[in-house]
Amino acid sequence: MPRFHVEIKVMPRAALLDPQGKAVEHALTELEFAGISGMRVGRAIKFELDSADKSSAENKAKAMCDKLLANPVTEDYSIATEEV
Amino acid sequence: MPRFHVEIKVMPRAALLDPQGKAVEHALTELEFAGISGMRVGRAIKFELDSADKSSAENKAKAMCDKLLANPVTEDYSIATEEV
Repeated sequence: MPRFHVEIKVMPRAALLDPQGKAVEHALTELEFAGISGMRVGRAIKFELDSADKSSAENKAKAMCDKLLANPVTEDYSIATEEV
Repeated sequence: MPRFHVEIKVMPRAALLDPQGKAVEHALTELEFAGISGMRVGRAIKFELDSADKSSAENKAKAMCDKLLANPVTEDYSIATEEV
């Protein structure tokens, strides 16, 4: 069965406050980094997945996000798959 | 000054154990997702950065990783910048 490299980004939804992002942005500004705005901190998840084809790998990854990896109320996710 | 969208991924170094990744992989397997391996969980960081050009934006983002965003002992990072 073909193997795919899957990369998922789970980010706080744009309309919601992101306290962790705000804290990191503030800390970087204190370190004299200027010109930063709109910082958001989320999760990056990478793994290998055996699947029949690219579209089935994407569908499985989407189901994983819906069932476990992302909070449907507060987070959005994006999925990228690539055959290894 | 041009504005860049910066996206940083901070991941546990490949040679190190990633307990969070192992836990998520185990949880997904319990949920009947098969064929998963090598799961790693890291952080995805996105923000806008005002900078003179693309290469200076990348250098600033690299300095942010070295000074605050990544643990140099246990983590690797990758940076992508794109002019808005």
